[in-house]
Amino acid sequence: MLVVMQEGASEAQTENVINLLVEMGFTVHRSTGVRHTVLGGVGPIDDFDPAALEVIEGVKECHRIVSPYKLASRHFKPGGTVIKVGNVEIGGRQIVLMAGPCSVENEDQIERAAEIVASAGGQVIRGGAFKPRSSPYSFQGLGEHGLQLMRKAADRRGLAVISEVMDQTQIPLLSQYSDILQVGARNMQNFNLLRELGKVRKPILLKRGIAATIEELLLSAEYIMSGGNYEVMLCERGIRTFETSTRNTMDIAAMPVLKRLTHLPVIADPSHGTGKREYVLPMARAAVAAGADGLLVEVHHDPDHALSDGAQTLRPDQFTDMMQQVRAIASAIGRAS
Amino acid sequence: MLVVMQEGASEAQTENVINLLVEMGFTVHRSTGVRHTVLGGVGPIDDFDPAALEVIEGVKECHRIVSPYKLASRHFKPGGTVIKVGNVEIGGRQIVLMAGPCSVENEDQIERAAEIVASAGGQVIRGGAFKPRSSPYSFQGLGEHGLQLMRKAADRRGLAVISEVMDQTQIPLLSQYSDILQVGARNMQNFNLLRELGKVRKPILLKRGIAATIEELLLSAEYIMSGGNYEVMLCERGIRTFETSTRNTMDIAAMPVLKRLTHLPVIADPSHGTGKREYVLPMARAAVAAGADGLLVEVHHDPDHALSDGAQTLRPDQFTDMMQQVRAIASAIGRAS
Amino acid sequence: MLVVMQEGASEAQTENVINLLVEMGFTVHRSTGVRHTVLGGVGPIDDFDPAALEVIEGVKECHRIVSPYKLASRHFKPGGTVIKVGNVEIGGRQIVLMAGPCSVENEDQIERAAEIVASAGGQVIRGGAFKPRSSPYSFQGLGEHGLQLMRKAADRRGLAVISEVMDQTQIPLLSQYSDILQVGARNMQNFNLLRELGKVRKPILLKRGIAATIEELLLSAEYIMSGGNYEVMLCERGIRTFETSTRNTMDIAAMPVLKRLTHLPVIADPSHGTGKREYVLPMARAAVAAGADGLLVEVHHDPDHALSDGAQTLRPDQFTDMMQQVRAIASAIGRAS
Amino acid sequence: MLVVMQEGASEAQTENVINLLVEMGFTVHRSTGVRHTVLGGVGPIDDFDPAALEVIEGVKECHRIVSPYKLASRHFKPGGTVIKVGNVEIGGRQIVLMAGPCSVENEDQIERAAEIVASAGGQVIRGGAFKPRSSPYSFQGLGEHGLQLMRKAADRRGLAVISEVMDQTQIPLLSQYSDILQVGARNMQNFNLLRELGKVRKPILLKRGIAATIEELLLSAEYIMSGGNYEVMLCERGIRTFETSTRNTMDIAAMPVLKRLTHLPVIADPSHGTGKREYVLPMARAAVAAGADGLLVEVHHDPDHALSDGAQTLRPDQFTDMMQQVRAIASAIGRAS
Repeated sequence: MLVVMQEGASEAQTENVINLLVEMGFTVHRSTGVRHTVLGGVGPIDDFDPAALEVIEGVKECHRIVSPYKLASRHFKPGGTVIKVGNVEIGGRQIVLMAGPCSVENEDQIERAAEIVASAGGQVIRGGAFKPRSSPYSFQGLGEHGLQLMRKAADRRGLAVISEVMDQTQIPLLSQYSDILQVGARNMQNFNLLRELGKVRKPILLKRGIAATIEELLLSAEYIMSGGNYEVMLCERGIRTFETSTRNTMDIAAMPVLKRLTHLPVIADPSHGTGKREYVLPMARAAVAAGADGLLVEVHHDPDHALSDGAQTLRPDQFTDMMQQVRAIASAIGRAS
Repeated sequence: MLVVMQEGASEAQTENVINLLVEMGFTVHRSTGVRHTVLGGVGPIDDFDPAALEVIEGVKECHRIVSPYKLASRHFKPGGTVIKVGNVEIGGRQIVLMAGPCSVENEDQIERAAEIVASAGGQVIRGGAFKPRSSPYSFQGLGEHGLQLMRKAADRRGLAVISEVMDQTQIPLLSQYSDILQVGARNMQNFNLLRELGKVRKPILLKRGIAATIEELLLSAEYIMSGGNYEVMLCERGIRTFETSTRNTMDIAAMPVLKRLTHLPVIADPSHGTGKREYVLPMARAAVAAGADGLLVEVHHDPDHALSDGAQTLRPDQFTDMMQQVRAIASAIGRAS
Repeated sequence: MLVVMQEGASEAQTENVINLLVEMGFTVHRSTGVRHTVLGGVGPIDDFDPAALEVIEGVKECHRIVSPYKLASRHFKPGGTVIKVGNVEIGGRQIVLMAGPCSVENEDQIERAAEIVASAGGQVIRGGAFKPRSSPYSFQGLGEHGLQLMRKAADRRGLAVISEVMDQTQIPLLSQYSDILQVGARNMQNFNLLRELGKVRKPILLKRGIAATIEELLLSAEYIMSGGNYEVMLCERGIRTFETSTRNTMDIAAMPVLKRLTHLPVIADPSHGTGKREYVLPMARAAVAAGADGLLVEVHHDPDHALSDGAQTLRPDQFTDMMQQVRAIASAIGRAS
Repeated sequence: MLVVMQEGASEAQTENVINLLVEMGFTVHRSTGVRHTVLGGVGPIDDFDPAALEVIEGVKECHRIVSPYKLASRHFKPGGTVIKVGNVEIGGRQIVLMAGPCSVENEDQIERAAEIVASAGGQVIRGGAFKPRSSPYSFQGLGEHGLQLMRKAADRRGLAVISEVMDQTQIPLLSQYSDILQVGARNMQNFNLLRELGKVRKPILLKRGIAATIEELLLSAEYIMSGGNYEVMLCERGIRTFETSTRNTMDIAAMPVLKRLTHLPVIADPSHGTGKREYVLPMARAAVAAGADGLLVEVHHDPDHALSDGAQTLRPDQFTDMMQQVRAIASAIGRAS
């Protein structure tokens, strides 16, 4: 850690900061420059807030020079992590396709969805069982019954299942039916949930919050991993900006940035990333071209009558088209799909 | 609801949209213009996603003309809501001061904090008992013991207590010790938590998420109110923008905007809103000048040694100074403090 | 245009709005609903600010239903615009590559750059002659001499030239040497400049401002086109968000959004879009996969010693690699490069 | 400047960076830590891009430790700058009121505006003569005639004049009629304009760009000052965020942040900051409470018929009301108005 003192900071101020650093457990090296004194702190703790030092009298700025995450960093596992779910390998050469409706609505619907996904060559079916919506007056999901229907539809076709866990109380139920537990964008910093997921032996798909930086996403992954569960994949699903022609602004650069910073697989969700079905196909191509290891996409046999998220849900023909085009992109960059 | 058809939309497309609206329960009025056909839908449902209509073939755009929230709207209670907590009235003429440390650390610390708050004329003490932090390696709070210490310190001085509830499982415990239950920014759209808080008979302080619009904040308030708990106060604590000289950008305009849109009391949190203690005082003045009904502020007897959020926590003398200046502002705009 | 009156708006208020609309030149249709009265205005003017109506007493909201741009809209030329610059077609089947250094520094440097671009198969060389920098203490460009050097280097290899025009006084000079005139992000709403460019008979590359919406970008294109110059191409180069791991957040969805809204060619600039050279290659692939008609990229024979923008400038080997990969992506989506 | 090498950076990489720094003119101090080597560079140049060093092999991060602006920094003139315009002192104890219509429309209108401003106790009249609008089809201003009308109206009542200069060619004309030259948000980084304004002997009001950081605003002020014109005042007028209930999000914290970082006077523009007249009054109070030295506000005798910006323009009675309330706030914080 580096503390830069202000030009003209007094000796007493510098001493005070040194004492504070020593109290915090740092060994301090002092380097007196022409204009600025710089204090370098080496120590056992990585978890401190540079802002807390910057308000001390005489301090100009403070920089943390060790990443606040370790287990999630690329350094920790330079070769990259491959997560196996049945026969599916996530983070390997193949682009993995996870698709399905926003919510499980009934048996017919989820069976049709599974059929669409399987016949287009997808590997994982998605579907929400609990849908706490932003309006209190909406469809709230089928609960366990929905999970049962999705599991059956998946098993018939050899698909894996991913579904979202809304809070820590749902972990046991979701673990029973779902192969991958999804953490939604709103829960990215629900640390109670993350801590419990660290104890689970199921892969986690962790979505980036709509106002979360990439560093914060990695810190949330670290939270899970520090509990012992190293099978975390990260998902970019759009951040909030001033642009309104899409629901969110999909940060496609998060693919190469994450690939550089972490060894964990990276998934892209162009459905939530755009909010409009007509943009899902080009953004799926873009995400794969930028280095995504997989896609999470919403598809429904009749999206205009879907009970939730219809605007961003693909029709079956659009989905098949997307699969073909994504395959062509994957092959152009030396990957499979 | 108004659906504007595209220029040149076919009759079949228009018919299709009309049928869809009728299916959804709307009575439809059609108005054919020179360039655009406009469909007006009147109906029992207010909870639909205009985006879902905008992806239908031939539709140009769709506008919801009824607010998606009702109980929270100013229209519902034009005179404004005053929430009583013991002798304190929130939303009335007086500016209410809620202050205390980020976390309860030990008995001595919380007693000193209570003393600082009470002697400066504050009415409510704040303090966190559960601190799930963005790093898994940090101080996590004292739990129930912290609540007991804070309750005692408050009771000795006639203060009310506010503390944060992290998830629905903590509601019974928090309700036992705290007069006001705080919902943090990260939980603003934790709908399971909001639903349970609708059943509680304790006032709720609901913080705006860092990427939440004002409309979304009101919809979350509606969520709680629709469960029967009408005692909700709203808290602006900064949103995330590109500016980095402050931790967040405090949306001071949220004060007059909320005062216009809702009857609920509005509280400002300049500590989280700025992230730096030197800016808390001017932003507290600004918030009150803009119409805030109260302030939520962090204070500690020795913030440089606070276990969390030290950078944004006031020293005792700064707090006393703030109280005096806020009082002067309150009086300048015809309010008390 | 649609004006929705508030629930409970008085007859006098409604009359007042109708009179105002009539004064503005609208023919007004009134539709009285159960809760809301809606006024539809048809008229010759498309250029008014809905916000100005929303502050009138009794008005709930106002929606413009005609796009504020016409010449730039896809509707105006559904087949798309192809701009010819010498033998190069921009907006056609081929992905066009424009590349070169941030600034022209000297003859040797621009000759090398032209050689790199030409031998890798690029069609257009870029290079700045005027570099007004954010610090007053920096290299400010070679001016006309730089343009001469770049023109010579281009002519020797059959490349076209693109260079930035900083204000209207520079148009004659730039027009003498450059085939395409570039408008930088900071000038996207310099309406004096845009107006003059409408009178020029040179293609314009118009960059999106870092805080500009896609609609505003199109309105700026309209500005130029309304002066008679229809050869405008649009360039996405990143917008400003809270994310700091890249200099800007490249809005890759702008490709399909623009392709839908306008007939004008769309170019992507992954150098400014990311600010870091290691992310230029994957983002170039992504932009083409999402539908870009061309790329604008910075390359230098020795970027670590470039006088400006070195961080985002490719080395020659990285540029050649990018060209090959972009070609593979182009071919995967049925385009050429 | 501090360069932190990556953990495990090779000796050759470190040597390479040292050589590069020496080439750039820095004297380098090397400090080898347990995990990281840190290079401290001291040198004559302050204008370099840390990003350019961060892409060098082996570099983890680079921090500039000297502010990129000097003349604008508080350090340069700790007591603060007071700018005199006739009898008006800007940056002193008094809160200065600058007000008037968005555009000068005709003699009657500007005379009435001047009357409103003067009789309410304002000191400066504002009004635009050149209005290049975001649509090419709008009212574009009266030009020099407008300036003449405004000057006459001002002189009759002893008001000073402020008006916007759109590009460097307009400087002579504007200087003839206007006491203060305003640089609009879109021109904050028009460096050609800023350079020319450095040669002028008129005070400048520099508006913050809608996506500009506070540091960038200060760097633009530095640009002007480095040319010899030290009379610069800074104006916060709202930044662009995802919130849509106001046209911009007014960054009220910019007041105390600027007061800490610079000695230049700080003005707030709640008209552009909110875009809606009903929010101008509370935001004017907030800005003054937060430390603004003055306000820039739009007022018109009949804003519903104003030719531009009517939505955010105050009616005369609202303006008078605002003046009284601002005076009360000013007096509450020990200032005059």
